[in-house]
Amino acid sequence: MELWYTEEHTKNVRFSIKVDKQLVSFKSEFQRIDIFESKEFGRFLTLDGFMMLTEKDEFIYHEMITHVPMAVNPNAKKILVIGAGDGGTVRELAKYDHIEKIDMVEIDKAVVDLCREFLPSTACKLEDKRVNIYYEDGLKFVRSKHNEYDIVIVDSTDPFGPGEDLFTREFYGNCFNALKDDGILVNQHESPYYEADAIASKRANKQLKAVFPFATVYQLHIPTYPSGHWLFGFASKKYNPVTDLKADIWNSFGIKTKYYNTELHKGAFALPNYVKELISE
Amino acid sequence: MELWYTEEHTKNVRFSIKVDKQLVSFKSEFQRIDIFESKEFGRFLTLDGFMMLTEKDEFIYHEMITHVPMAVNPNAKKILVIGAGDGGTVRELAKYDHIEKIDMVEIDKAVVDLCREFLPSTACKLEDKRVNIYYEDGLKFVRSKHNEYDIVIVDSTDPFGPGEDLFTREFYGNCFNALKDDGILVNQHESPYYEADAIASKRANKQLKAVFPFATVYQLHIPTYPSGHWLFGFASKKYNPVTDLKADIWNSFGIKTKYYNTELHKGAFALPNYVKELISE
Repeated sequence: MELWYTEEHTKNVRFSIKVDKQLVSFKSEFQRIDIFESKEFGRFLTLDGFMMLTEKDEFIYHEMITHVPMAVNPNAKKILVIGAGDGGTVRELAKYDHIEKIDMVEIDKAVVDLCREFLPSTACKLEDKRVNIYYEDGLKFVRSKHNEYDIVIVDSTDPFGPGEDLFTREFYGNCFNALKDDGILVNQHESPYYEADAIASKRANKQLKAVFPFATVYQLHIPTYPSGHWLFGFASKKYNPVTDLKADIWNSFGIKTKYYNTELHKGAFALPNYVKELISE
Repeated sequence: MELWYTEEHTKNVRFSIKVDKQLVSFKSEFQRIDIFESKEFGRFLTLDGFMMLTEKDEFIYHEMITHVPMAVNPNAKKILVIGAGDGGTVRELAKYDHIEKIDMVEIDKAVVDLCREFLPSTACKLEDKRVNIYYEDGLKFVRSKHNEYDIVIVDSTDPFGPGEDLFTREFYGNCFNALKDDGILVNQHESPYYEADAIASKRANKQLKAVFPFATVYQLHIPTYPSGHWLFGFASKKYNPVTDLKADIWNSFGIKTKYYNTELHKGAFALPNYVKELISE
């Protein structure tokens, strides 16, 4: 027999992975959670059927959502992470010895529990003593925070289902308030390529620009996401992600990465014309 | 009914596109040529079943294989194009008024004839009076050329089948001889992501380095190619693609592009660590 996982990237495009075994299929209060074992990508996690991460390429997503803001403010000590139940973002943050506090707000405890059991390569640093996990709605959590964090990382699902609130102007406004005067927000920002993703990306950028003095996107290759061409948002009160990059300081940390480096950091903000147009319309 | 085109990106990964209609299915002397009509990507061309281009995203491939070398040597007047039967590379070159001669060497006349008929958006400039089309083996054609071209663009298929010879040291050596003292070669360089592609990419880079004083790769997003993360090679006798970029001159040409710009040019050479390791091993 053959077992294939298939995701519809659009109604007309399908991406399929040969699966050895389905390890988990669980319906939580919020979503359906599946974990599969595959030869090509190792284990992979889907939520409501959508690809979240694979063991083969999650390093790209997690390094780029973490080290980009950390290299712009390498002095950051208090970090808020919204979503990120798989633990990959926390694993990257835990590489910085000087970070004092990582608050992680994940709405779905089942994601964290299952990743702890089946994806230890991403969940491995959730026990770090600097990490506080709150199983709450990110939108509500951030409302009560003021001038508290250096960086907010929004490591969310797509802008429908449980992740929907994390793409609203209200949420970004609350993040703005939760951040210190030199605060930075980065977020999962969809893709510029297929139409529905591009519309979501454009909308997210527009909402961010309405709240933050500076908001742009940077790009990365995620082969297992629709089109492989993905964007993260970078919004800040003060810093420009390229001219304020502290390359020497970041490199002095000696952090080992497989995708990120400080030259790539600058390169990732150099956008194709059609992407520049998308976010400037 | 539904009609789906499926390409195996690896034995364990499939990419499928819903097709409205198969417009062409032709067995030439060299390969099987198919052209399909689809809602998502417009028309698309496959050779021996492998995706070559779609109307939706061919601009990315063709702009990046053309404008990168042209912006490093914006004075280039004589260009050799190997492969490229769809005409997209010639279309981009034809945007430069000062180019005097474009020799295009395509082994398979059937590809050119069918693209002229069914893909006029890429083939539209093959009638430009500066273009000379030779229906020959690129390896043989280039053997007799010495000190003749400013730029050689190798717009080939994968390193098996008709494109195999275009990834050999012998071929690169002949290209070196065909180039002037400040000559540049760029080539389709496979992908760093899936294992078989990465091996091909590494081998191509090694062969280029054995022949040219300078050889590196640059990256781009091609959503309809395996992994979406693609590399082109840049090899030269004299120029560094980043420090010798003539951004002001290139921008003064006023050439309209949808992907390429001179900031992206620099960004494309900033490689992820795992890609740098791949080509430095």
